[in-house]
Amino acid sequence: MAAFMLAPAIFAFIYGDPELDTFVHSLLITALVGLTLVYSFRVSQIALNARQLYLLTSCAWLAMSLAGALPFMISHHPMSVANSTFEAVSGITTTGATVMSKLSAVPKSILLWRSLLQWLGGLGVIGMAVTILPFLRIGGMKLFQTESSDWSEKSMPRFQQFTTTIMEIYILLTMLCSLSYWSAGMTPFDAVNHAMTTVSTGGYATDDLSMARFSSAILWISVVFMLLSAMPFAMYVRFYVRRSAQSLFDQQAMVFLIIVSVATFVLAGQLMTNGILPPLAAITHAAFNIVSLITTTGFASTDYTLWGHFSIALFFFATFVGGCSGSTTGGMKVFRFQLSFLYLRDQLRQLVHPRGVSAIKYNGKSVQPDIIASAAAFSFMFFVSLGVVTLLLTIIGIDFMTSFTGALTALSNVGPGLGDIIGPAGNFEPLPDAAKWILSFTMILGRLELFTVIILFTPVFWRG
Amino acid sequence: MAAFMLAPAIFAFIYGDPELDTFVHSLLITALVGLTLVYSFRVSQIALNARQLYLLTSCAWLAMSLAGALPFMISHHPMSVANSTFEAVSGITTTGATVMSKLSAVPKSILLWRSLLQWLGGLGVIGMAVTILPFLRIGGMKLFQTESSDWSEKSMPRFQQFTTTIMEIYILLTMLCSLSYWSAGMTPFDAVNHAMTTVSTGGYATDDLSMARFSSAILWISVVFMLLSAMPFAMYVRFYVRRSAQSLFDQQAMVFLIIVSVATFVLAGQLMTNGILPPLAAITHAAFNIVSLITTTGFASTDYTLWGHFSIALFFFATFVGGCSGSTTGGMKVFRFQLSFLYLRDQLRQLVHPRGVSAIKYNGKSVQPDIIASAAAFSFMFFVSLGVVTLLLTIIGIDFMTSFTGALTALSNVGPGLGDIIGPAGNFEPLPDAAKWILSFTMILGRLELFTVIILFTPVFWRG
Repeated sequence: MAAFMLAPAIFAFIYGDPELDTFVHSLLITALVGLTLVYSFRVSQIALNARQLYLLTSCAWLAMSLAGALPFMISHHPMSVANSTFEAVSGITTTGATVMSKLSAVPKSILLWRSLLQWLGGLGVIGMAVTILPFLRIGGMKLFQTESSDWSEKSMPRFQQFTTTIMEIYILLTMLCSLSYWSAGMTPFDAVNHAMTTVSTGGYATDDLSMARFSSAILWISVVFMLLSAMPFAMYVRFYVRRSAQSLFDQQAMVFLIIVSVATFVLAGQLMTNGILPPLAAITHAAFNIVSLITTTGFASTDYTLWGHFSIALFFFATFVGGCSGSTTGGMKVFRFQLSFLYLRDQLRQLVHPRGVSAIKYNGKSVQPDIIASAAAFSFMFFVSLGVVTLLLTIIGIDFMTSFTGALTALSNVGPGLGDIIGPAGNFEPLPDAAKWILSFTMILGRLELFTVIILFTPVFWRG
Repeated sequence: MAAFMLAPAIFAFIYGDPELDTFVHSLLITALVGLTLVYSFRVSQIALNARQLYLLTSCAWLAMSLAGALPFMISHHPMSVANSTFEAVSGITTTGATVMSKLSAVPKSILLWRSLLQWLGGLGVIGMAVTILPFLRIGGMKLFQTESSDWSEKSMPRFQQFTTTIMEIYILLTMLCSLSYWSAGMTPFDAVNHAMTTVSTGGYATDDLSMARFSSAILWISVVFMLLSAMPFAMYVRFYVRRSAQSLFDQQAMVFLIIVSVATFVLAGQLMTNGILPPLAAITHAAFNIVSLITTTGFASTDYTLWGHFSIALFFFATFVGGCSGSTTGGMKVFRFQLSFLYLRDQLRQLVHPRGVSAIKYNGKSVQPDIIASAAAFSFMFFVSLGVVTLLLTIIGIDFMTSFTGALTALSNVGPGLGDIIGPAGNFEPLPDAAKWILSFTMILGRLELFTVIILFTPVFWRG
């Protein structure tokens, strides 16, 4: 985190940005605390069991959030502890919900830090999703275990190569996105910032208008890179290693693209038939906002809640879906819906032919019942968490719609909710501090696939 | 259905009710159509396979709904086909959503018919839940198979005794409820009508005020009988056969009562601390409205949506829960939440101790993974149905909140939704006809545990 603070510090130094000292101080504090911890607890060899991995993962995200909040807290226009933490957590979890407004007046080094937090968070999430989570067998992610998470000694070099390749792909995507944005008319600063928040499907913008101030060309570039970032990154690695078009086939990616396309065309059709937008604009804005929501990015090109009842309902349900597992996206993830659907179809067949043999296949491999049950347990936990957080928010006096969609958008790491306060045209600043703390926790909960955090609160974890 | 129409006909004859001819005509038409069908298709012996049972179940509920709608359609103040069907479906599915208002001016024979529809529907639902559904292994209900649904030849007498006993218990509960209401101050007519709609957890009332015009004593009587009717009826049969207090222990009933108690006390606490109601009234109204909603009855003693944000959120989530399986209640049912919770706990234990042996027990018996997966498939189908119906309703121009809670309340067979139109103080009359048809279908879908209906729309059902 300290090393990453060098970027806004150097930027501030070069462009005479007023927040130079903020980042220098933040960097020194973070480095000091970090190095102290490293030297205090150093061991000759690290060997972690499952229990320690859970604790480490949650603590790592918590520590990154606190370090990320530091510049907001000690800047020349210091933000409250609740606001700073919320903004940093929203960044590092690539949610994109913000408590800041009048962004055009905010020093550019601070804006750069927000984008960097998301970019870093996105990288962390892919890394976690392809390495730690399948090993921990959380929420059906055992499904992706064979691909990357063989933690035995002899596969270590292959494993390291895998993570390095993923990092290279992530950096490559960011560079391509920056160049595309820049060539389509963004300033270099905007291009780099938006590229970082696009590829991480985070959604922080450098202006209160989000993406509404950019051309259609830029919106379409954004659509392409949001979609690319919502794909399973292991798919890119497969392609990189084998260099065959066939290795780009992935059942999750395919269904994800189908969902996005259907939602876009239905919405665009509605917008056209109801005369809300002319055909071309309808397709552009429908595609952009649907892709932005389903990929859990959270950019907006307009206030889509003014598009009518159907649009509101569609965006609400889109907030659940999320992208592919092993990407930077949040939400429930496409593969869980696929497993449920495949199991459901199998069930219906069995209801008609009770003696038939069932076999569920995913990406060509047969799926064991425990993986389906595990994915279902995740969905159950998702809805329980959604209910509990919503009730907590209403207790502190927030209206039902804001509470419900706020809890949902935080849990899915999307960004905007519904209603006047946290809708695509609003922000989270007016909420009371208690709500910001609850939502900060919810964002981390969602980002770490629920179980990594919840398990820390069970007696069985601490026993023995 | 024709036989049941005798009741309002006789009532109309005795009390000089203007709708006598309506019920005589309805009775004759229903009997004529019914007898024609019976004689046209009679066979010496009936042997049904799973496929035919699905078709028969859905067709039976459809036929009952159509016959039930007849009196509304041909009455002296005839209702439209959409309204009549909606009202009859809402009755026979024990939902309790209504399109009728100014109930005090409606002929009493019509009110009696509405109550009778719910009473009959309730009886049909328990019968179906303890006999057909476990046999069809729908949505985890195989769990209850051993108790009653051994369809082999030699257990037939025991099976018939079982269903007869259930019918007796249902009638006994209705009589006790009528007497209690009457002794607490209701008129005999109101007592009988409300008893029928209480025990069936239907919720039709004889006045637009629902239960708001009655005393606290009556509200508490209602609470007791709604709870009794939400219990698994097989539990009563066990008690009836074995006569031991031990046979009244049921894991589902116990957790159901815990959920209801916790929700009541939390809500009552909120009402008191926020000064919305004095302590005694807070407990009475919290208990009554929570029990009414969780048991999917749908009576209201006041407009609880005016109690604040927390109350709205609580009632919203309560609409999902439902009572115990094998009762007259709708919703997702307590046992599915229990299975999910038990599985989740088992999962969390396994995440910490990967080599541990898992064993999930329910009511003392070990639960196989296929039952949990089957219950999860039901939940998935529930949420998909909720989403699709919501989107359909918004497409025909209904606002998101009304669409979402309308779809939910229909699917759960509760009755009231949220918002100005279909909230506890409103009714479904202002909705367009298309919405009434969609919601009528949704109520039958929910009542028949989704799969019984959905399977009819799959290619595999019709193949071969």
